[in-house]
Amino acid sequence: MKHIVLQNLNSREIMPGFHGRMVHSDNMTFAHWHIDAGAPLPEHSHMHEQVVNVITGEFELTVDGVTEIIGAGEVAIVPSNAIHSGKALKDCYIIDVFYPVRKDYR
Amino acid sequence: MKHIVLQNLNSREIMPGFHGRMVHSDNMTFAHWHIDAGAPLPEHSHMHEQVVNVITGEFELTVDGVTEIIGAGEVAIVPSNAIHSGKALKDCYIIDVFYPVRKDYR
Repeated sequence: MKHIVLQNLNSREIMPGFHGRMVHSDNMTFAHWHIDAGAPLPEHSHMHEQVVNVITGEFELTVDGVTEIIGAGEVAIVPSNAIHSGKALKDCYIIDVFYPVRKDYR
Repeated sequence: MKHIVLQNLNSREIMPGFHGRMVHSDNMTFAHWHIDAGAPLPEHSHMHEQVVNVITGEFELTVDGVTEIIGAGEVAIVPSNAIHSGKALKDCYIIDVFYPVRKDYR
Protein backbone atom coordinates (compact mmCIF):
# COMPACT_ATOMS: atom_id res chain seq x y z
CA MET A 1 0.00 0.00 0.00
CA LYS A 2 0.96 3.62 -0.26
CA HIS A 3 0.56 5.48 3.04
CA ILE A 4 0.56 9.27 2.82
CA VAL A 5 0.73 11.69 5.75
CA LEU A 6 -0.81 14.82 4.29
CA GLN A 7 1.12 17.17 6.60
CA ASN A 8 4.34 15.82 5.10
CA LEU A 9 3.35 16.96 1.61
CA ASN A 10 4.04 20.47 0.41
CA SER A 11 0.91 22.61 0.43
CA ARG A 12 0.66 24.35 -2.95
CA GLU A 13 -1.32 27.54 -3.50
CA ILE A 14 -2.62 26.52 -6.92
CA MET A 15 -4.93 29.54 -7.06
CA PRO A 16 -4.98 32.48 -4.62
CA GLY A 17 -6.49 31.20 -1.37
CA PHE A 18 -6.56 27.55 -2.47
CA HIS A 19 -3.92 25.61 -0.54
CA GLY A 20 -3.82 22.03 -1.77
CA ARG A 21 -2.07 18.79 -0.96
CA MET A 22 -2.32 16.35 -3.85
CA VAL A 23 -2.43 12.57 -3.78
CA HIS A 24 -2.47 10.60 -7.01
CA SER A 25 -3.53 6.98 -7.25
CA ASP A 26 -3.42 4.97 -10.45
CA ASN A 27 -6.79 6.31 -11.58
CA MET A 28 -7.71 9.30 -9.45
CA THR A 29 -6.36 12.55 -8.04
CA PHE A 30 -7.25 13.68 -4.51
CA ALA A 31 -6.89 17.39 -3.77
CA HIS A 32 -7.05 18.07 -0.02
CA TRP A 33 -7.76 21.81 -0.03
CA HIS A 34 -7.68 24.34 2.74
CA ILE A 35 -9.44 27.32 1.20
CA ASP A 36 -9.50 30.83 2.63
CA ALA A 37 -12.92 32.41 3.12
CA GLY A 38 -13.69 34.67 0.19
CA ALA A 39 -11.35 32.96 -2.26
CA PRO A 40 -12.92 32.86 -5.74
CA LEU A 41 -12.76 29.88 -8.09
CA PRO A 42 -12.65 31.30 -11.63
CA GLU A 43 -14.89 29.75 -14.26
CA HIS A 44 -13.29 26.78 -15.96
CA SER A 45 -13.93 23.26 -17.18
CA HIS A 46 -11.99 20.04 -17.64
CA MET A 47 -12.65 16.59 -18.97
CA HIS A 48 -12.22 15.08 -15.50
CA GLU A 49 -15.25 14.14 -13.48
CA GLN A 50 -14.99 15.94 -10.11
CA VAL A 51 -16.57 15.08 -6.78
CA VAL A 52 -16.45 17.80 -4.12
CA ASN A 53 -16.55 16.52 -0.51
CA VAL A 54 -16.97 19.43 1.90
CA ILE A 55 -15.58 18.39 5.29
CA THR A 56 -15.77 21.79 7.00
CA GLY A 57 -16.88 25.23 5.86
CA GLU A 58 -19.23 26.31 3.10
CA PHE A 59 -18.60 26.68 -0.61
CA GLU A 60 -20.82 28.39 -3.19
CA LEU A 61 -20.56 26.38 -6.39
CA THR A 62 -21.96 27.21 -9.82
CA VAL A 63 -22.11 24.40 -12.37
CA ASP A 64 -23.52 25.00 -15.85
CA GLY A 65 -25.32 28.11 -14.59
CA VAL A 66 -26.85 26.60 -11.46
CA THR A 67 -25.59 27.89 -8.10
CA GLU A 68 -25.82 25.92 -4.85
CA ILE A 69 -24.22 26.26 -1.45
CA ILE A 70 -22.38 23.10 -0.43
CA GLY A 71 -21.97 22.84 3.33
CA ALA A 72 -20.06 20.55 5.67
CA GLY A 73 -21.22 16.95 5.28
CA GLU A 74 -22.36 17.58 1.73
CA VAL A 75 -21.10 16.39 -1.64
CA ALA A 76 -21.38 17.86 -5.14
CA ILE A 77 -20.75 16.00 -8.38
CA VAL A 78 -19.43 18.07 -11.28
CA PRO A 79 -19.80 16.14 -14.53
CA SER A 80 -17.02 15.84 -17.07
CA ASN A 81 -16.60 19.07 -19.08
CA ALA A 82 -19.18 21.05 -17.05
CA ILE A 83 -18.37 24.76 -16.73
CA HIS A 84 -17.96 25.59 -13.05
CA SER A 85 -16.90 28.37 -10.73
CA GLY A 86 -17.42 29.32 -7.13
CA LYS A 87 -16.42 31.03 -3.95
CA ALA A 88 -15.52 29.92 -0.44
CA LEU A 89 -18.14 31.46 1.86
CA LYS A 90 -16.16 30.33 4.93
CA ASP A 91 -12.75 28.79 5.49
CA CYS A 92 -13.11 25.32 4.01
CA TYR A 93 -11.53 21.91 4.15
CA ILE A 94 -12.59 20.20 0.95
CA ILE A 95 -11.50 16.95 -0.65
CA ASP A 96 -11.91 17.15 -4.42
CA VAL A 97 -11.60 13.84 -6.22
CA PHE A 98 -10.96 13.72 -9.94
CA TYR A 99 -11.20 10.91 -12.46
CA PRO A 100 -9.00 10.38 -14.37
CA VAL A 101 -5.75 11.59 -12.79
CA ARG A 102 -5.13 15.34 -13.14
CA LYS A 103 -1.71 15.35 -14.71
CA ASP A 104 -1.59 19.15 -14.35
CA TYR A 105 -1.62 18.72 -10.54
CA ARG A 106 1.34 16.35 -10.52
CA MET B 1 -24.62 19.15 -10.70
CA LYS B 2 -25.75 16.59 -8.20
CA HIS B 3 -25.84 17.92 -4.64
CA ILE B 4 -26.03 15.34 -1.88
CA VAL B 5 -26.66 16.01 1.82
CA LEU B 6 -25.11 12.97 3.46
CA GLN B 7 -27.41 13.13 6.51
CA ASN B 8 -30.38 12.66 4.17
CA LEU B 9 -29.04 9.32 2.92
CA ASN B 10 -29.78 6.13 4.79
CA SER B 11 -26.79 4.94 6.79
CA ARG B 12 -26.27 1.26 6.01
CA GLU B 13 -24.41 -1.11 8.33
CA ILE B 14 -22.67 -3.01 5.54
CA MET B 15 -20.52 -4.93 8.03
CA PRO B 16 -20.89 -4.92 11.83
CA GLY B 17 -19.70 -1.54 13.09
CA PHE B 18 -19.31 -0.04 9.59
CA HIS B 19 -22.07 2.54 9.03
CA GLY B 20 -21.83 3.88 5.49
CA ARG B 21 -23.49 6.49 3.32
CA MET B 22 -22.78 5.85 -0.34
CA VAL B 23 -22.48 8.32 -3.18
CA HIS B 24 -21.95 7.12 -6.74
CA SER B 25 -20.68 9.31 -9.53
CA ASP B 26 -20.32 8.14 -13.12
CA ASN B 27 -16.91 6.60 -12.43
CA MET B 28 -16.41 6.37 -8.68
CA THR B 29 -18.08 5.30 -5.45
CA PHE B 30 -17.67 7.32 -2.25
CA ALA B 31 -18.31 5.50 1.02
CA HIS B 32 -18.61 7.92 3.93
CA TRP B 33 -18.10 5.58 6.88
CA HIS B 34 -18.63 6.07 10.57
CA ILE B 35 -16.89 3.07 12.07
CA ASP B 36 -17.16 1.93 15.67
CA ALA B 37 -13.91 1.46 17.58
CA GLY B 38 -12.93 -2.20 17.53
CA ALA B 39 -14.88 -3.10 14.40
CA PRO B 40 -12.93 -5.61 12.32
CA LEU B 41 -12.66 -5.51 8.53
CA PRO B 42 -12.45 -9.13 7.37
CA GLU B 43 -9.83 -10.03 4.78
CA HIS B 44 -11.08 -9.53 1.24
CA SER B 45 -10.12 -8.17 -2.16
CA HIS B 46 -11.82 -6.55 -5.15
CA MET B 47 -10.84 -5.33 -8.55
CA HIS B 48 -11.55 -1.73 -7.56
CA GLU B 49 -8.72 0.58 -6.67
CA GLN B 50 -9.46 1.99 -3.17
CA VAL B 51 -8.24 5.18 -1.55
CA VAL B 52 -8.80 5.47 2.21
CA ASN B 53 -9.06 9.04 3.52
CA VAL B 54 -9.06 9.06 7.33
CA ILE B 55 -10.78 12.25 8.50
CA THR B 56 -10.95 11.38 12.21
CA GLY B 57 -9.90 8.37 14.26
CA GLU B 58 -7.31 5.68 13.61
CA PHE B 59 -7.56 2.56 11.48
CA GLU B 60 -5.15 -0.38 11.40
CA LEU B 61 -4.92 -1.55 7.80
CA THR B 62 -3.19 -4.63 6.43
CA VAL B 63 -2.59 -4.78 2.68
CA ASP B 64 -0.83 -7.74 1.10
CA GLY B 65 0.63 -8.69 4.47
CA VAL B 66 1.89 -5.24 5.48
CA THR B 67 0.19 -3.55 8.46
CA GLU B 68 0.15 0.20 9.03
CA ILE B 69 -1.84 2.51 11.27
CA ILE B 70 -3.62 5.21 9.28
CA GLY B 71 -4.45 8.24 11.42
CA ALA B 72 -6.48 11.40 10.91
CA GLY B 73 -5.10 13.47 8.05
CA GLU B 74 -3.60 10.41 6.41
CA VAL B 75 -4.39 8.52 3.23
CA ALA B 76 -3.80 4.91 2.17
CA ILE B 77 -3.96 3.60 -1.37
CA VAL B 78 -5.04 -0.03 -1.78
CA PRO B 79 -4.20 -1.27 -5.27
CA SER B 80 -6.66 -3.16 -7.43
CA ASN B 81 -7.01 -6.80 -6.27
CA ALA B 82 -4.79 -6.37 -3.17
CA ILE B 83 -5.84 -8.54 -0.22
CA HIS B 84 -6.70 -6.29 2.69
CA SER B 85 -8.18 -6.36 6.17
CA GLY B 86 -8.12 -4.18 9.24
CA LYS B 87 -9.56 -2.88 12.45
CA ALA B 88 -10.80 0.46 13.72
CA LEU B 89 -8.55 1.37 16.66
CA LYS B 90 -10.78 4.34 17.51
CA ASP B 91 -14.16 5.58 16.29
CA CYS B 92 -13.44 6.68 12.73
CA TYR B 93 -14.85 8.90 10.02
CA ILE B 94 -13.34 7.60 6.82
CA ILE B 95 -14.07 8.41 3.18
CA ASP B 96 -13.24 5.42 0.99
CA VAL B 97 -13.17 6.13 -2.71
CA PHE B 98 -13.37 3.33 -5.25
CA TYR B 99 -12.68 3.21 -8.95
CA PRO B 100 -14.63 1.99 -10.81
CA VAL B 101 -18.09 2.24 -9.26
CA ARG B 102 -18.87 -0.46 -6.67
CA LYS B 103 -22.09 -1.86 -8.05
CA ASP B 104 -22.44 -4.02 -4.92
CA TYR B 105 -22.82 -0.83 -2.84
CA ARG B 106 -25.67 0.53 -4.98
